[in-house]
Amino acid sequence: MNNYNKLERHAKKLSRLSHLNAICGWDQAAMMPDGGAQARSEAMAELAVISHELSTAPYLENWFAEAEQEDLTTEQRVSLAALKRHWMMHNVLPADLVEQQSLTGSQCEHAWRSQRKENDWEGFKANLKPVVELARQEAVIRSQVTGLSRYDALLDIYEPGMTSAVLDDIFTEVKSWLPQLIQQVEAKQITEEILPLSAPFAIEKQQALSLEAMALLGFDFDHGRLDISTHPFCGGVPTDVRITTRYDEDDFTSALMGVIHETGHARYEQGLPQQWRDLPVGEARSMGIHESQSLFCEMQLARSPAFSRLLAPMIQKSFNSDDASLSAENLRLINTRVKPGFIRVDADEVTYPAHVILRYEIERDLIEGNIEVDDIPTIWDQKMTQYLGISTQGNFTDGCMQDIHWTDGSFGYFPSYTLGAMYAAQFMATINKQLNVEQLVAQGDLTPIFEWLHNNIWSKGSTLSTDKLVEQATGEMLNPEHFKKHLMKRYLNK
Amino acid sequence: MNNYNKLERHAKKLSRLSHLNAICGWDQAAMMPDGGAQARSEAMAELAVISHELSTAPYLENWFAEAEQEDLTTEQRVSLAALKRHWMMHNVLPADLVEQQSLTGSQCEHAWRSQRKENDWEGFKANLKPVVELARQEAVIRSQVTGLSRYDALLDIYEPGMTSAVLDDIFTEVKSWLPQLIQQVEAKQITEEILPLSAPFAIEKQQALSLEAMALLGFDFDHGRLDISTHPFCGGVPTDVRITTRYDEDDFTSALMGVIHETGHARYEQGLPQQWRDLPVGEARSMGIHESQSLFCEMQLARSPAFSRLLAPMIQKSFNSDDASLSAENLRLINTRVKPGFIRVDADEVTYPAHVILRYEIERDLIEGNIEVDDIPTIWDQKMTQYLGISTQGNFTDGCMQDIHWTDGSFGYFPSYTLGAMYAAQFMATINKQLNVEQLVAQGDLTPIFEWLHNNIWSKGSTLSTDKLVEQATGEMLNPEHFKKHLMKRYLNK
Repeated sequence: MNNYNKLERHAKKLSRLSHLNAICGWDQAAMMPDGGAQARSEAMAELAVISHELSTAPYLENWFAEAEQEDLTTEQRVSLAALKRHWMMHNVLPADLVEQQSLTGSQCEHAWRSQRKENDWEGFKANLKPVVELARQEAVIRSQVTGLSRYDALLDIYEPGMTSAVLDDIFTEVKSWLPQLIQQVEAKQITEEILPLSAPFAIEKQQALSLEAMALLGFDFDHGRLDISTHPFCGGVPTDVRITTRYDEDDFTSALMGVIHETGHARYEQGLPQQWRDLPVGEARSMGIHESQSLFCEMQLARSPAFSRLLAPMIQKSFNSDDASLSAENLRLINTRVKPGFIRVDADEVTYPAHVILRYEIERDLIEGNIEVDDIPTIWDQKMTQYLGISTQGNFTDGCMQDIHWTDGSFGYFPSYTLGAMYAAQFMATINKQLNVEQLVAQGDLTPIFEWLHNNIWSKGSTLSTDKLVEQATGEMLNPEHFKKHLMKRYLNK
Repeated sequence: MNNYNKLERHAKKLSRLSHLNAICGWDQAAMMPDGGAQARSEAMAELAVISHELSTAPYLENWFAEAEQEDLTTEQRVSLAALKRHWMMHNVLPADLVEQQSLTGSQCEHAWRSQRKENDWEGFKANLKPVVELARQEAVIRSQVTGLSRYDALLDIYEPGMTSAVLDDIFTEVKSWLPQLIQQVEAKQITEEILPLSAPFAIEKQQALSLEAMALLGFDFDHGRLDISTHPFCGGVPTDVRITTRYDEDDFTSALMGVIHETGHARYEQGLPQQWRDLPVGEARSMGIHESQSLFCEMQLARSPAFSRLLAPMIQKSFNSDDASLSAENLRLINTRVKPGFIRVDADEVTYPAHVILRYEIERDLIEGNIEVDDIPTIWDQKMTQYLGISTQGNFTDGCMQDIHWTDGSFGYFPSYTLGAMYAAQFMATINKQLNVEQLVAQGDLTPIFEWLHNNIWSKGSTLSTDKLVEQATGEMLNPEHFKKHLMKRYLNK
């Protein structure tokens, strides 16, 4: 067995442990009774220790050095690069920094859960400072290894190949038209009357409707399932994808759109290349590309007028109602309502980028050392006012304390959300050139659309860089113009 | 940290891995879609390899030697003995024998699944022979280490302290009255008319009824849950016990009695001593004691006339029916019907011991080398005719090929079922002296009964030998007379 094969076997072992972690993590969120929490977290921590020991085993360095000299196929070289990136990610930081981050992050996150409710910025700030300090240390080390800037070295964890230079260009452009667009859309929508939904909507009926929507979107129920959890997510493993949602009896649209969103993530996972199963090269390309698949389903497809016409009869049948509020047109109005608000996770697709750009600018400057934790609330309020026209002054709960990401030191993640929205728009623009999407949706025949995604995105796993993947699929690198056009067309008929 | 503490830490690590195995195993049976099977079994096999490496780590021998010299509390000495037994169990067999057993057993079990359906004794026999051969090798090795006879050395795995000398005495006694008892009960029941149930019984209603029965029996839903699987079981971990059932729309009693049975197992697990969590000394005492708890709930409690009176109104309300077939008296008749049959798992509590004694006698002689695999069908048929008055000649499917146990080499397990029935009767006899069980059941107040089980059985874990446990709880060692009296009283009013 050559060294490349030894590395493959080692990676498969790690992947199988992460399979157990994924299933037990899903169980923890979707099935486990509260009393099981303590023993479960101990069991999962034990697994994390074993995985960490395997990931950082000293013999790996030599295996990589040897493997690079071996006679490998082109595919194996690509796989080796992915294996090495994976190994570097786990080995670049000294063990004591990782441990300190874990402790400080858990503490900050744990306290944040109550501090947020109490609008306690002073208390939270004291915990966030050491988290930022450690993230800066991490950024310095990653920067030295990768040659990237400090913030870019963190961004690289989630979005390999992306840089703040590119993001600055993109986001500056977006900022030049977004605030005005939002105002125009608001002015237009003020005249549109939305009929309120006639609640309640029974959970079992919503569940049946969700499963129907998943089937329509081609979810493979032989390799996955739908359950309930407080915070919806897409988990499990590619051969057994577990998506979750939560149901609100007053409003079925939140669960339905949530399930459609997670189904996008799920189909990506289910469509990853079988031949690279359990290896890094067979995994999803990046967080942004992952988000592009969920937003493709939710934003590009499900909130379109054609899709509202496809869903409306299903919805009416599910709830056995011909109430006018369930008409295709009223559902379309509900699904495309734009309203600037404080909370990112509740934001519509037009205002969402403003939330992301604001966070990106703050975390970039924080990691690069241009601002301090103390400066966050003021900058947050300035940017909210500038981008969305609403002030969060004094309201930390719904302002800079609303997200979990920074509490445990996950700096560099936020841009993925808007990159995902942009990739999704670009994919749809390309598909629209090759297929008549509106007609296919009208016929309820989504297969050709998903075949395109399968052939161009899912089946590639991580064999290509993000740029290459997008270029091969669409003929050009990331072009935010498609996203702008999508918003203009959908929201202003332009 | 002294060596005892190192052993404790090591055992906790193993227990945490077995926690992950238990949850993923439960998921596999109750949640996983079929397409997830291959990757799941690979992931669980990887965990088994890691657990095996940990269980057989070479440094442990020295830790045990040192720990035995250390200054330990009495409790720690008891825990150390349990740790050592656990370690011995995993280390007494050479690795190549374990591997051969695993391969041969999987092959035999896998082929058995189709061979049984096809009544293919010749095909099955060819696979069973090497399984028996390897079990005999295992028995020889275990016999040398323990000083027990070969069969007793296997029995010891499931029922520490029990021997075939004791079993022979008990079962000879049972055989002296059981065939006659069965005939008398059959003669008596022939005059009793049972009203047939008015199917169908909706699954959701059966599920709600099952949960109600579990609540009545004190199942702790903060530390466990009920789900569906093809083969009902009690899994999970003590802090999160997962029981399963399957529902038959034609007959709610099978699921209801099944759930009550598993609830007995579950309460034992939930009641194990917290202070010894994750250590062998904190685990259930033996398979027989475990079965005594499920049979206590199902046979001693739930199939009693008083319990039928308690359940009948719940059942009538569940199915919104006052049909005469759901009367307490008719339910009692259903729940105590005796009918000799071919299949052990379908047997009533009167004929059940005959199935077990038959298997015990065959597996004992097989392991001791007194009979061969070729002899099994003839002996099986002789004993079925002798004990139950029915012949299985030529019917291997419903004869010696009906159980999974022998296919993977689990010889020595069968006695636990009837030992459990006997312990359950003995516990109930003692409780009846201290409490008015019939009155408590009539009031629906089962708490004092379970408190007795908690104080005398559950909270003891494995701190006492089985003999000691039973003696402390009931004032005497295992006395099968209680079981006989129970059957005489319930089935012949004697």
